[in-house]
Amino acid sequence: VTKEQRPDLSEHLTCAHALADASAAAILPYFRTAMAVNNKAKGRDFDPVTAADQAAEAVIAKYLKEKRPEHGIVGEEFGNHQAGARFKWVIDPIDGTRSFIIGTPMWGTLIGLLDGAEPILGIMNQPYTGERFWSDGSASFMSAPALPSPTRLATRRCPILRDAVLASTHPDIFAPGPEREAFTRVKTEAKLTRYGGDCYAYCMLAAGFVDVIIETSLQPYDVVALIPIVEHAGGRMTTWSGGSAAGGGQIVACGDPALHAKVIDLLAG
Amino acid sequence: VTKEQRPDLSEHLTCAHALADASAAAILPYFRTAMAVNNKAKGRDFDPVTAADQAAEAVIAKYLKEKRPEHGIVGEEFGNHQAGARFKWVIDPIDGTRSFIIGTPMWGTLIGLLDGAEPILGIMNQPYTGERFWSDGSASFMSAPALPSPTRLATRRCPILRDAVLASTHPDIFAPGPEREAFTRVKTEAKLTRYGGDCYAYCMLAAGFVDVIIETSLQPYDVVALIPIVEHAGGRMTTWSGGSAAGGGQIVACGDPALHAKVIDLLAG
Repeated sequence: VTKEQRPDLSEHLTCAHALADASAAAILPYFRTAMAVNNKAKGRDFDPVTAADQAAEAVIAKYLKEKRPEHGIVGEEFGNHQAGARFKWVIDPIDGTRSFIIGTPMWGTLIGLLDGAEPILGIMNQPYTGERFWSDGSASFMSAPALPSPTRLATRRCPILRDAVLASTHPDIFAPGPEREAFTRVKTEAKLTRYGGDCYAYCMLAAGFVDVIIETSLQPYDVVALIPIVEHAGGRMTTWSGGSAAGGGQIVACGDPALHAKVIDLLAG
Repeated sequence: VTKEQRPDLSEHLTCAHALADASAAAILPYFRTAMAVNNKAKGRDFDPVTAADQAAEAVIAKYLKEKRPEHGIVGEEFGNHQAGARFKWVIDPIDGTRSFIIGTPMWGTLIGLLDGAEPILGIMNQPYTGERFWSDGSASFMSAPALPSPTRLATRRCPILRDAVLASTHPDIFAPGPEREAFTRVKTEAKLTRYGGDCYAYCMLAAGFVDVIIETSLQPYDVVALIPIVEHAGGRMTTWSGGSAAGGGQIVACGDPALHAKVIDLLAG
């Protein structure tokens, strides 16, 4: 499918913004309340699912099934609705659930759209701060209460790892052994490492304040919305081996494509 | 000095809020701009001082020298002005400078007041989100754009470490050897660990969403403002050996005093 054959994306983008608005209204009443945190995982692992996730899931699924009945839906809380559809919404109601439950604003609602296997637009919505980051398929933008109008996002130049700010959600996500060693090789060279970002870090990379993000064990719904935001701001986002990031797994994003090539080499060892 | 001998704190609290307002106006124009980041540290260490720090320092020092000429000022950017004064303002214009420079809101302005060696009131101001956390010396509060009026902060009950959410700024702050082993003993038992919080994490502890914070190598200006906020919300904040936290160093804060006693024991080994 080429851009020429693709229907006008503006209608899809309007739908994505409507989903962001509706999910924000569903989620915010639960933020910083002593909501029930269910524990999906067995034993000592902690995988919280909050009432907020479920409330957002319900409004998103209802909206899409009514307004876009021919589209598929993919997500942790959604399963895989209409897996054969050409257009599939890939959604994480709360990316960064751990940040959500500790009361910080380092979480967001991820709303992405696939055309076949290709992420074509995406939104990261942070309803507490009122910030929204998105790509319309050709550029990336942010809006915020402090901004008079949406601002174009652009990554910054940073071709050298020694000058780079590295972000990752948590050091413990990397399996001991080769995976952790690969991360450590990059971390050791980088200027500064920050943890705790989740989806927020990718938006800060698109905005030109973070240079490289390295993660692992990601799901498609963790990344599909973010890929257009990063790439249409000038960055590169792939798997550690340079393939499409849309399937998740081991992910590397860089604001500067020249840095991306070097980091891929360093991760490979 | 007993509470009875202490002058009414409300005038000092008004001064603290005025400093928060003035510093916010000085800092915000620099947030998420490509401001010059000076590197104070030699070699590979990265210790950023931004133009925002310096702008906030200037307005705070000017205000205090005019309105409270008899008071001392302590802080990274201030040195130690009038070290012999009974009342000393202990100030960090931007606590969480690394979060500031990567564009996330996990930083704040810390404004504390010592009466002799005792922290008697404190503010953590987050001007980008519009959130303010403070203690008036007998209770703790927060205000935010989403709240119709200031809300009383209260820590949550969590007497058992296995149920606790642990926060710390960065795993690499702990020196390899006994210090890192002590942190790891607590981390291994805790339910969940989050990094990247700085002052914001202490406020989330005061609000009942984080249960334990463990840090090291802190300065007085990193902690003095936070001690009244944590303690008047029902928490305990001390050094790892249980002494006054006001001097900085190795710090442990817990929302539940019963948990604090257990964490102190575990840190001691």
